[in-house]
Amino acid sequence: MTALDADGALALELDRAHVFHSWSAQGALQPLVVAGASGCEVALADGRTLLDFSSQLVNTNIGHQHPRVTAAIAEQAGRLATVAPSHAVLPRGRAAEAILRHAPASFSKVFFTNGGADANENAIRMARLVTGRDKVLSAYRSYHGNTGAAVVATGDWRRVPNEYARGHVHHFGPYLYRSEFWATTPEEECERALRHLARVVEAEGPGSIAAILLETVPGTAGVLVPPPGYLAGVRAIADRHGILLVLDEVMAGFGRTGSWFAFEQHDVVPDLVTFAKGVNSGYVPAGGVLMSDAVARAFDDRVYPGGLTYSGHPLAMAAVVATIEAMEDEKVVENAARIGAEVLAPGLAALADAHPSVGEVRGTGVFWALELVTSRATREPVGPAAMGAVKAGLLDRGLLPFVQDNRIHVVPPCVVTDAQVARALAAYDAVLSELDATL
Amino acid sequence: MTALDADGALALELDRAHVFHSWSAQGALQPLVVAGASGCEVALADGRTLLDFSSQLVNTNIGHQHPRVTAAIAEQAGRLATVAPSHAVLPRGRAAEAILRHAPASFSKVFFTNGGADANENAIRMARLVTGRDKVLSAYRSYHGNTGAAVVATGDWRRVPNEYARGHVHHFGPYLYRSEFWATTPEEECERALRHLARVVEAEGPGSIAAILLETVPGTAGVLVPPPGYLAGVRAIADRHGILLVLDEVMAGFGRTGSWFAFEQHDVVPDLVTFAKGVNSGYVPAGGVLMSDAVARAFDDRVYPGGLTYSGHPLAMAAVVATIEAMEDEKVVENAARIGAEVLAPGLAALADAHPSVGEVRGTGVFWALELVTSRATREPVGPAAMGAVKAGLLDRGLLPFVQDNRIHVVPPCVVTDAQVARALAAYDAVLSELDATL
Ligand SMILES: Cc1ncc(COP(=O)(O)O)c(C=O)c1O
Ligand SMILES: Cc1ncc(COP(=O)(O)O)c(C=O)c1O
Repeated sequence: MTALDADGALALELDRAHVFHSWSAQGALQPLVVAGASGCEVALADGRTLLDFSSQLVNTNIGHQHPRVTAAIAEQAGRLATVAPSHAVLPRGRAAEAILRHAPASFSKVFFTNGGADANENAIRMARLVTGRDKVLSAYRSYHGNTGAAVVATGDWRRVPNEYARGHVHHFGPYLYRSEFWATTPEEECERALRHLARVVEAEGPGSIAAILLETVPGTAGVLVPPPGYLAGVRAIADRHGILLVLDEVMAGFGRTGSWFAFEQHDVVPDLVTFAKGVNSGYVPAGGVLMSDAVARAFDDRVYPGGLTYSGHPLAMAAVVATIEAMEDEKVVENAARIGAEVLAPGLAALADAHPSVGEVRGTGVFWALELVTSRATREPVGPAAMGAVKAGLLDRGLLPFVQDNRIHVVPPCVVTDAQVARALAAYDAVLSELDATL
Repeated sequence: MTALDADGALALELDRAHVFHSWSAQGALQPLVVAGASGCEVALADGRTLLDFSSQLVNTNIGHQHPRVTAAIAEQAGRLATVAPSHAVLPRGRAAEAILRHAPASFSKVFFTNGGADANENAIRMARLVTGRDKVLSAYRSYHGNTGAAVVATGDWRRVPNEYARGHVHHFGPYLYRSEFWATTPEEECERALRHLARVVEAEGPGSIAAILLETVPGTAGVLVPPPGYLAGVRAIADRHGILLVLDEVMAGFGRTGSWFAFEQHDVVPDLVTFAKGVNSGYVPAGGVLMSDAVARAFDDRVYPGGLTYSGHPLAMAAVVATIEAMEDEKVVENAARIGAEVLAPGLAALADAHPSVGEVRGTGVFWALELVTSRATREPVGPAAMGAVKAGLLDRGLLPFVQDNRIHVVPPCVVTDAQVARALAAYDAVLSELDATL
């Protein structure tokens, strides 16, 4: 590794002295220093260039520094950088329209937020107010954000030190590789997961449940693509009891799975959809709730008790419009679908064939996970030290990876090329060989 | 009123069809359509120009479209628009350093968020984890944001439909004009408000309270500048019981009160400070928590269980650096202090003398409220219909006002000029004469 340039050295010094980092103990952090980026590549301050197969936090769906989006931001900054949400401005209306262009006809309005957590907060609020019920049912294997309700809707460890919200109940979703239901086939897993969900709903009291909140494809929890029929089955349970179905597409939406919304692949139409990340690739903080007309109309004559200073922020909105238009024109979602079906699916399957440390490969579009195990028989997860070596090995080979628990998430921008996937597959291959050798 | 131009007509049409608005019933909204802005002026799509005495949502402290800030955003957009929070980037370190430059020496780190609500969420989380206690004590007259914990820490009506977080307790703060303590002088109000707070703390059980969370100057609740000694007294109560003092400077900070932080005027140093709005005038969504070294160090070896995708977002950080540097170079905070002391204070006092409908004037810097009453004897608040007429009358006179309950909040950008204040005072004067006539 070469030395940092002067700006990089200063960046690192100021970061260590004064920047408090998310989800970490601060003492031992050794952040990479990023100087710039372009497309699927990130330039570090030590001169290295990395192939970005993390999309940062799975948000740069359109890649880094797309010229249409950065130009739109600069243009909007020069025109009107900020405005209160109560006033109307053209980029906000156009952003809502651009999002709705890709949504089912039952959706009519968008409530904009700054990110994914506050999108989920507001979807939960809407569901409670519309149904007059308290409880929100979500999955143990899920992440919904860091604020009061979103973090308690979250299922993973991050919920536990943060349980200060009431009205949250959790259930197990389908995950055949580590079935909670003693299932052995996708059909069985689906049927049993639905039966389990129906039982939780009954036992909690269906009349107390405002919403079932699910990531369409649970992301951070491991890219757990639900089996065919599961989400349609959830919709049926919700309908039976007057419960709203909220799908969190913060990570899965806007091309990640190879369609504009992941739920399009699952024969289901939710009542509310939360989004962030891919909607403008994170170039400006933005998120929101896509609202069915029925939910939106419930607040025509009744005050909606929620809001935020930067709702529908002009810079964020200009970035949304430019991102969606560029994705349409350049067929970015189609590229993600093709790369998923034709390049990643066979390439990752070949890795699984070649490497005993790969327990399962799953995914769709540019949203995949390699689940690593010490033994295929026991399915024991590879431990933190070995995963640290996997991460370091990938970085050494010029890949910026997304490593989570015992998994490599394969989550490049939707604009990734065949050649870039080939480079990444070679890096995974080499590192998995090293891992195999240690097992 | 002239007709909207074509872009304005489209903006209004798309807004009404597809944009869901904060804190409102959606049916009857008639938003102003904003086409552009500069300094203290906002250009509407119908050709009118309004003098912005709202600073939008009290956030454009540096005024609209400051060229240094918009240039910094455009420049950063061209260089690196987004990056994961785990990586280090120069603008983030520089933003943290710029903020800390204006903070007491006991502060060492900044945790960045997207706005004010998530700043308060994280400050509350930090206080709970550091103290190992649950409860957060905040004022009934307060607003802290719309997410799970922030909205329940909030005291006003917005809390009530949103009470899904536990561990929140409320108390009454000082507000002599409508004293909760039967006080008749500032000294008495201060002493009794402290006594009330001490009693709530004792009655709740001091060992159960993690934090006292207060707006240094409660803003939306009416620009309730605390009497001298109050905040120092709160600090003493907190210290006595090992409670952290969190000051919410989302609205009061970054020049609004005529100092960088409002608490500088109150002889008190908090443990945590939350900020947003003025930190970059809202040009890019940003907020954060300013952390004392003692709180920051508590997470050196312990994982901090909170985070968000856009923490320390490069565009937001570039805007923070440019905003703070421009405010320093152009003595923007000094201007706010001078305007407050020399122009607004006497000018608003003269209005109060002239108009029986003005019950009280209070404020500091460019942060003032005119509290309107139907009778000075009864102090009965002017009702919604008359306040609607006040708002319309100000708009007719070319002023974009901030009207809240029975108050006009006088909250121009910190860069406001003497001449602009004179224009605004004339508009207030005329409208108050009309109001007087109806009483
Ligand atoms: C599915 C999902 N929901 C919500 C969030 C929270 O988004 P944010 O970090 O913008 O608050 C995330 C972030 O990773 C996510 O993956
Ligand atoms: C004192 C205070 N705290 C917090 C907030 C919430 O900030 P945001 O709307 O950015 O979430 C506000 C917003 O007006 C505020 O005035």
